[in-house]
Amino acid sequence: MKISHRIANINGGGSDGWDVFLKARGMIAEGIAVTELTIGEHDIRTASPILQEMHRSAMAGHTGYAMVPGIDDLRDTVAARVQARTGVPTTRDNVIITPGGQAALFAAHSAACDPGETALYIDPYYATYPGTIRSVSAVPRSVPAHAENAFQPRAKDIAAAAEKGAVSLLVNSPNNPTGVVYNRETLDGIAQVCKAHDLWLISDEVYDSQVWEGEHISPRALPGMAERTLVVGSMSKSHAMTGSRCGWIVGPEEVIAHLVNLATNTTYGVPGYIQDAANFGLKQGAEVEAEVAEPFRRRREKAIDVLASQNTVTLVPAQGAMYLMLNIRATGLSGDDFANALLDAHHIAVMPGESFGQAAAGHVRVAMTIDDERFIAALKTLCAFAAELADK
Amino acid sequence: MKISHRIANINGGGSDGWDVFLKARGMIAEGIAVTELTIGEHDIRTASPILQEMHRSAMAGHTGYAMVPGIDDLRDTVAARVQARTGVPTTRDNVIITPGGQAALFAAHSAACDPGETALYIDPYYATYPGTIRSVSAVPRSVPAHAENAFQPRAKDIAAAAEKGAVSLLVNSPNNPTGVVYNRETLDGIAQVCKAHDLWLISDEVYDSQVWEGEHISPRALPGMAERTLVVGSMSKSHAMTGSRCGWIVGPEEVIAHLVNLATNTTYGVPGYIQDAANFGLKQGAEVEAEVAEPFRRRREKAIDVLASQNTVTLVPAQGAMYLMLNIRATGLSGDDFANALLDAHHIAVMPGESFGQAAAGHVRVAMTIDDERFIAALKTLCAFAAELADK
Repeated sequence: MKISHRIANINGGGSDGWDVFLKARGMIAEGIAVTELTIGEHDIRTASPILQEMHRSAMAGHTGYAMVPGIDDLRDTVAARVQARTGVPTTRDNVIITPGGQAALFAAHSAACDPGETALYIDPYYATYPGTIRSVSAVPRSVPAHAENAFQPRAKDIAAAAEKGAVSLLVNSPNNPTGVVYNRETLDGIAQVCKAHDLWLISDEVYDSQVWEGEHISPRALPGMAERTLVVGSMSKSHAMTGSRCGWIVGPEEVIAHLVNLATNTTYGVPGYIQDAANFGLKQGAEVEAEVAEPFRRRREKAIDVLASQNTVTLVPAQGAMYLMLNIRATGLSGDDFANALLDAHHIAVMPGESFGQAAAGHVRVAMTIDDERFIAALKTLCAFAAELADK
Repeated sequence: MKISHRIANINGGGSDGWDVFLKARGMIAEGIAVTELTIGEHDIRTASPILQEMHRSAMAGHTGYAMVPGIDDLRDTVAARVQARTGVPTTRDNVIITPGGQAALFAAHSAACDPGETALYIDPYYATYPGTIRSVSAVPRSVPAHAENAFQPRAKDIAAAAEKGAVSLLVNSPNNPTGVVYNRETLDGIAQVCKAHDLWLISDEVYDSQVWEGEHISPRALPGMAERTLVVGSMSKSHAMTGSRCGWIVGPEEVIAHLVNLATNTTYGVPGYIQDAANFGLKQGAEVEAEVAEPFRRRREKAIDVLASQNTVTLVPAQGAMYLMLNIRATGLSGDDFANALLDAHHIAVMPGESFGQAAAGHVRVAMTIDDERFIAALKTLCAFAAELADK
């Protein structure tokens, strides 16, 4: 039977750069102790009060179909949170609740792109970005953010890609995998290009509670951008609710109304008890989010100390999110080769920069998602290993 | 900003036949007591033991990302259930867990259809079917199942539609909205046409635990059909878990593998604690499913008695699912006009047959989803009202 081109080619062919990850998982399955610094998931679980609220809601009978756009209370809370952080007037009619940030990325591209149209995204990129674009039968085109520019994308590179024809641009700040937070100059440039080339801006801001340096600016708050920006948010990173699949899109009312129609046909809403739990979590305020982010803040500081004591590995400015991007070019190896060698020699698994596109070649991404002691020990081993290789 | 054609036109334009439903909701909002016989949702909630298991799982820490294809235990249980009911060898590799049956319908069409290709579906149809097809940028084409043939679709009608070019056929038995269960002759005909025209068969079997007469036959079990059939299942109707959004697709291993890639980009899996709860529910066996179905079985029998005592309204053979389809043509009104008049005169809301396409014109669908006493009283009022109209 013929399977649609869309899903048969969703991964774009070729290696997807996850070989090291899979090799590490294979070693673990064989009983080998591997230190995994690969996964963007907290080493804590969802807090008990949130789960208790979920149970209360379910036992109270909120087990039937929830309203497809999301329950009013949660939409109101998300709208208030966004307005408080950005100053942009936002109501529930600007918000649709989705089953997770990934579903929001998919729905946003569904709204922006028709089949065959081109959608831009920045390289390095989170693993699903090009596949998400292919899922809506659109054509992904990457725009490099250069290591030399600390992975801040430049307006001229985006404009050059847009000039070939495109309908949308996907950006992510705080950024996975680089840990960079886009500065005002970068965002002004992005806004300018979007307006000049009539692009939708899809702004993935799921790490907005994890900012260590500088300020998170939502591009929806820039002049003339609210009408063309779809902001993707989620409970996953801010409240350690990755598995609960609860996210949202914030955007213009008209597109949200159409997205509700899409949701009717693609998901039919999000469990009401999960929405009640998310609403409870958000209403606990910024302190809870800071608590969830604290381990990454702490490990990042310790990591900076470790990295300061050597000069083989260079840290890309670690401004936000739960990752460190390390330049290991001094070893003479590619990110792929270095990650493989590190796994073989020391049973430490990190993600090659090449897993996230071409622009992060010669780098590895280290997730700060294990306990401090093991994390720091692994980082020291990584640095020592890099130094050995560089000395060869 | 230009919104994609896909989602701007997802409802196909024109009235969607839900005016009566919305009018009833408006009356309720104004404080008017309306008897709602419109919604396909149980009047019971999810059983407490299932919710307790969900809470146990969440508190035990199953709050992180679940495996994208679904947890092994649930995939195994679904595979075993399908194999036991159909005799078709089925393993976890034939199963992907989805966030609800609607998400499964969407994913199945994503796998079967590329943009611009035609997908067939049977009229009368569940409200989301054409929109689901449009969501994947495919073109919906309906095939009528005639009232005169008790809404069993005929092979020759499907073949005629397939000859114009099509890649898939969507069927639903037990059927919403008609309550008909497809018989062996119907299914043999469907299988024959699918094989002759190389169509994917997408078989929505979410009502398979609600069969009152005859036998539910899954077309995947027919000769040569397992390789071209995608079965959509769900916990919604069988276990009163509508709001939990937990369903699945059962199909050939190759397409399931591609559907996992699609899920990575569209949903990123289903909450692990919901999957644990679903697995617990399914493992309780058929008795629990029979209990959930019992109110509909009971109300249907009472309804048949009521309808036997008059001769204006005719019942379409009510063989399965939670609905009665009533032929009200003797009143001289359309289903739309009858439903509107009934709502105005007696504050009873039913769905016009026209809400579900053209083939059910002159009918109304009555959901058996309120308590027996009010249900029977409303049905008697409906019949008396129809008799008055017919006598005019």
